[in-house]
Amino acid sequence: SKNGGKTKPPPVMRYNLNNVTITHNPVENRENVLILTPMARFYQEYWDNLMKLSYPHELITLGFILPKNKEGNAATSELQKQIAKTQTSGPEKARFNSIIILRQEFDPPISSQDEVERHKMQNQRARRAAMAKARNSLLFTTLGPAVSWVLWLDADIIETPPTLIQDLALHDKPLIAPNCFQRYYNTETKKMDERPYDFNNWQDSPTAQQLGEKMGPDEILLEGYQDMPTYRSLMAFMYKPDEDKHTEVPLDGVGGTALLVKADVHRDGAMFPAFPFYHLIETEGFAKMAKRLGWQATGLPNYKVYHYNE
Amino acid sequence: SKNGGKTKPPPVMRYNLNNVTITHNPVENRENVLILTPMARFYQEYWDNLMKLSYPHELITLGFILPKNKEGNAATSELQKQIAKTQTSGPEKARFNSIIILRQEFDPPISSQDEVERHKMQNQRARRAAMAKARNSLLFTTLGPAVSWVLWLDADIIETPPTLIQDLALHDKPLIAPNCFQRYYNTETKKMDERPYDFNNWQDSPTAQQLGEKMGPDEILLEGYQDMPTYRSLMAFMYKPDEDKHTEVPLDGVGGTALLVKADVHRDGAMFPAFPFYHLIETEGFAKMAKRLGWQATGLPNYKVYHYNE
Ligand SMILES: Nc1nc2c(ncn2[C@@H]2O[C@H](COP(=O)(O)OP(=O)(O)O)[C@@H](O)[C@H]2O)c(=O)[nH]1
Ligand SMILES: Nc1nc2c(ncn2[C@@H]2O[C@H](COP(=O)(O)OP(=O)(O)O)[C@@H](O)[C@H]2O)c(=O)[nH]1
Ligand SMILES: [Mn+2]
Ligand SMILES: [Mn+2]
Repeated sequence: SKNGGKTKPPPVMRYNLNNVTITHNPVENRENVLILTPMARFYQEYWDNLMKLSYPHELITLGFILPKNKEGNAATSELQKQIAKTQTSGPEKARFNSIIILRQEFDPPISSQDEVERHKMQNQRARRAAMAKARNSLLFTTLGPAVSWVLWLDADIIETPPTLIQDLALHDKPLIAPNCFQRYYNTETKKMDERPYDFNNWQDSPTAQQLGEKMGPDEILLEGYQDMPTYRSLMAFMYKPDEDKHTEVPLDGVGGTALLVKADVHRDGAMFPAFPFYHLIETEGFAKMAKRLGWQATGLPNYKVYHYNE
Repeated sequence: SKNGGKTKPPPVMRYNLNNVTITHNPVENRENVLILTPMARFYQEYWDNLMKLSYPHELITLGFILPKNKEGNAATSELQKQIAKTQTSGPEKARFNSIIILRQEFDPPISSQDEVERHKMQNQRARRAAMAKARNSLLFTTLGPAVSWVLWLDADIIETPPTLIQDLALHDKPLIAPNCFQRYYNTETKKMDERPYDFNNWQDSPTAQQLGEKMGPDEILLEGYQDMPTYRSLMAFMYKPDEDKHTEVPLDGVGGTALLVKADVHRDGAMFPAFPFYHLIETEGFAKMAKRLGWQATGLPNYKVYHYNE
């Protein structure tokens, strides 16, 4: 490229991956965080919560992937409105380091409205495979050499502690998931209440293992379906109100609602399988793949984040 | 960041992944190619061959990963010398779009880079697992949203047709591998001769399938070892001197010496497993993983590239 008549040499970038630290004190060590969000709909509450994160915004890169359909177009324009506000006219402190927005068409998972329960599970499989590919596209396309941490945060996570990143990083774990709940109006007590939401954070069970062993190589285990009881221990039900927020439990499957991952886990090759991997797909398959690469997932049953209630 | 007293808004990048074309005519369509090379040693012949590639250099990004050891340091400084020459003082037409150099420490599986030591079967698994992680680090860290094609090219590939990228892309295949040979001095004929080199490009066999079925989940199949005959059909031996250079064969396993991959294959999640995946690892496991994602590998038995002879 030309630069005032003089030729500017193209950029050569050198990175020593060993110098990119990944520590339990990422603020002090100025570690870069990549927040990745697959987004089908835009919720103002998601953006407001994101803005309130106290991790230095200049160390945060945001990456979004939105589907190339009508709903995705609407979400993209709402997202861009908020981004423009933050990055241009808002206070400098609130601005993020950089923002990448990807648009992508997927084969829409086959819809079959009036099918029996079994078919709903089959729809779930196509949907999770499409989600896995969306997450991989986002990950492979945005993860640069300077990133220390990847925070997966779904677009419908509308409430977290502002110190979410620092709190999770403090545990110094390769993969760590808070417990995802949902607020709702309890018609019995006539009060606002809350209930467990994300059932993909779990510890394996002998029953699930045996189910897997009897399956063909292309079949998958799904969590949260009455037809296929797995007797796994779900983190969603491990929450204890009066106990330490930082209590850790090992996990064999993880969800994607909120999940902090050391960038090296992804760099070693851990991704979201869109095919059955040990009878698991997407985020649950990711936890298994990380494990195969030597990285153990951890959950924090008493550390809560909240999912939107439609 | 400050810009002459005025605050410059941080960059927001929008990409429509559906607009990044991947076609059989990539030059005309101005498609970006990412050439990825894991490099333990620097060979001048590799660089000279790279420079001769006729694909427009301004559409090429180079990515290297070198080990953080004495040999890797030496290779890095030789590489940087050549890069400086090309990107700064050489003709503008020869310059590449951008260049990324990564340095990384792995647990060195074997101390010696000696070919005999490298190829010993008991050393292969740890070595190939380390190579898989190196390839993944390089891939996950350099693949941006604007890339159409990824050319995997080993650092000891010293001779290819200058039209390599165009010739391979013309086939419009998700993964396509030329046939990797090696020149040597034939002591019988007392003339320079050539022989097949890369045995990782193969078509599966019933024997290999049966071997796999009898194996434990953590065991791997390796190709090219007398101790473990697989009776796979190796592309290395399919070369026919007088036949069409563009003859295609389907492949079940691929090598990494030279391999052109549509970027979408990687974006869907296909990577180099460092763990046994259907009893395969690294590039061979990659072909299988691509297949699980719906992408079939192709080989060109009569299209030759050449490996260095130590
Ligand atoms: N890019 C993309 N994101 C999606 C798509 N479908 C859902 N999402 C997002 O992916 C995340 C998980 O999906 P969601 O439907 O909330 O899953 P659930 O909460 O498990 O029912 C959310 O952030 C969604 O906004 C899609 O087709 N494309
Ligand atoms: N980054 C990195 N590259 C390596 C390492 N070992 C080998 N390579 C490179 O990886 C490629 C394949 O390795 P090589 O030893 O040539 O494999 P072979 O030809 O199958 O015996 C070559 O480009 C090597 O220069 C390593 O430890 N780190
Ligand atoms: Mn959701
Ligand atoms: Mn080699």
